[in-house]
Amino acid sequence: MPEEILRARAYLLRAVEPPSRDLVALIDRHGPVEAADRLRHGAVPDALLRAAAARRDDEQIDADLDAAAAAGARLLVPEDPDWPAWPFTALATAPRRDLAPPVALWARGPGEVSALAERSVTVVGSRAATQYGLHTAAEFATALARRGVTVFSGAAFGIDAAAHRGALAAGAAPTVAVLACGPDRAYPAAHTGLLERIAATGAVLSEYPPGTVPGRLRFLVRNRLLAALGAGCLVVEAGARSGSKRTASDTRALGRPLMAVPGPVTSALSVGCHEMVRNQQAQLVGRPEDVLEIVGRLGVDLALPPAGESRPTDGLAPEALAVYDALPARAASSTGRIGASAGVSPAAVRAALVELEERGLAEYHQGLWQRAARRAGP
Amino acid sequence: MPEEILRARAYLLRAVEPPSRDLVALIDRHGPVEAADRLRHGAVPDALLRAAAARRDDEQIDADLDAAAAAGARLLVPEDPDWPAWPFTALATAPRRDLAPPVALWARGPGEVSALAERSVTVVGSRAATQYGLHTAAEFATALARRGVTVFSGAAFGIDAAAHRGALAAGAAPTVAVLACGPDRAYPAAHTGLLERIAATGAVLSEYPPGTVPGRLRFLVRNRLLAALGAGCLVVEAGARSGSKRTASDTRALGRPLMAVPGPVTSALSVGCHEMVRNQQAQLVGRPEDVLEIVGRLGVDLALPPAGESRPTDGLAPEALAVYDALPARAASSTGRIGASAGVSPAAVRAALVELEERGLAEYHQGLWQRAARRAGP
Repeated sequence: MPEEILRARAYLLRAVEPPSRDLVALIDRHGPVEAADRLRHGAVPDALLRAAAARRDDEQIDADLDAAAAAGARLLVPEDPDWPAWPFTALATAPRRDLAPPVALWARGPGEVSALAERSVTVVGSRAATQYGLHTAAEFATALARRGVTVFSGAAFGIDAAAHRGALAAGAAPTVAVLACGPDRAYPAAHTGLLERIAATGAVLSEYPPGTVPGRLRFLVRNRLLAALGAGCLVVEAGARSGSKRTASDTRALGRPLMAVPGPVTSALSVGCHEMVRNQQAQLVGRPEDVLEIVGRLGVDLALPPAGESRPTDGLAPEALAVYDALPARAASSTGRIGASAGVSPAAVRAALVELEERGLAEYHQGLWQRAARRAGP
Repeated sequence: MPEEILRARAYLLRAVEPPSRDLVALIDRHGPVEAADRLRHGAVPDALLRAAAARRDDEQIDADLDAAAAAGARLLVPEDPDWPAWPFTALATAPRRDLAPPVALWARGPGEVSALAERSVTVVGSRAATQYGLHTAAEFATALARRGVTVFSGAAFGIDAAAHRGALAAGAAPTVAVLACGPDRAYPAAHTGLLERIAATGAVLSEYPPGTVPGRLRFLVRNRLLAALGAGCLVVEAGARSGSKRTASDTRALGRPLMAVPGPVTSALSVGCHEMVRNQQAQLVGRPEDVLEIVGRLGVDLALPPAGESRPTDGLAPEALAVYDALPARAASSTGRIGASAGVSPAAVRAALVELEERGLAEYHQGLWQRAARRAGP
């Protein structure tokens, strides 16, 4: 990778707070090196100049590259074959201006983001999750990782962390965290160890320059990257007002499938998920297989319907079932009485009794019929 | 009501096991009295003659009327103004032959079925329900009954009983049970008291002649009446294989809305509900208001979205939110430093700070700004 491209993009990342469609347009037109020069010299459209006013002169390229390197992060740029170009296409063409693609990403870890995003799901949900939510997020993540699906999440408390941990527990596929702070920061601090485990096999990504602290807006802005990187987005728990709703709406704006895990209607943290399903914004998923069917490969990852017990009376025609219902469990009865009780004609009663006997459901003894011993009443 | 009509229909109810579209067609063509005579004399199409073979000569009209009367039941016939003619229209025109309308109904209780069915919901679910399911069925039934909605159900163990009990607890609207046995039987026997309470203000209905025992087929056949009588059908808990699925498919065949209550994905008894929603057969409902919106009066019973907490930062534009995020909680800072941290131009920073101060979110002191005391970090 030419050093000048890395340096230009490192400068641009710091000079303009993302997301900036104006900056992306400038780079698209002139390339990153000339775009950086133009911004330095103020030769850019007014709107971009205003957006960059606070940090245009704040040249910290060497310091940023050094701080990132010290934290184990490199700068992943669109010119890199590992850049997730395809997932970010949705951002480039999104109708909402605030869904602009990132200019570059600081990346810790060996995970090849482009490849990892191919078969992937973003998992989001409440930070104040319930035990049910934490358990479900982990179970889904483990099952999906076992099937080679990359779990993307935000490393926050609650559902995010449970999803990352579940994916790591599978030991089968890397997981990727996208942060809302600089690559040299672990946020939340309590997840320093978790982020290290994620970075050991997967990747920890951020579009913020080293030293950047997270903030409410940056979490919202970061969410568009999560929405874009997953082939679909799974919401595990969300209250009536939840940050996950923003990721959910970004997901929909990008044309990606949105999925929600239901929960008890008595739980305030399932209200958001239920609302999304009720409003037909999200598809309900009850099993990891359902997620796989939605984000997986067409025709390969089709979910089978949940299995139920089979019963000996399965497949009986209504008349045969009526006769079965009319068969006494004790005190065997005649075909005539059975027919009268079932409301079935004598010929049909006899045909049904033969079928029931073959299935081991009816017993014939001295001209009379009764239920075979092993089954009880209705 | 002419006695001869009651007697004819009582005979027909016993002569042919329901459902019978052939019998309904015969009555439609000739009226109940002549239809009964024709059946007695064998002057009916072959198919109907075969269906009636077992019980055509089993005349027990007086005994049936007496047994029903002894049990407090009268015979409700389509010629009665109280007959739920409108709900049963869907059965008359249903494409499936097994969804034939009933010929008459034995009815215990003062409830005017036709009026009760106008604003109504059928509640079904597993007999082996969980505490969660029982609680939810009762809560929904209570809330709906309070809003004047009649709860129809089957008086079975589990969800059915919880729904009836919940409706009774509201003390505001009658509830109606539809049985799969004769009107002189209480099934299950453990629900004798419950059925009496239902019949005290509402109604207990059955299309089976006195003495009829319930059976697997009769439960299935009964379900079409429940599906037809409710303006919609709510499934509270259903396993992968559940009798409720039959009522659910009847509901859909009749063009009525089907609703399902979600539950924990870890519960086998929510699998059926989740599948119905996932397959877009049922609408997810998380609150009684959702049910009311679906089965209630257009425009009157519209559900409001679930309320969430409001936050002081609600409605802030992205730049103002970025500035708020960049405001130090302690150690006040200059507009320049705040702007650099937020990536916002000096003019926009000043505008944002004024707005934040007005909202009580920012404090100005000796030329420097910081967060107002009452709120903590992101």
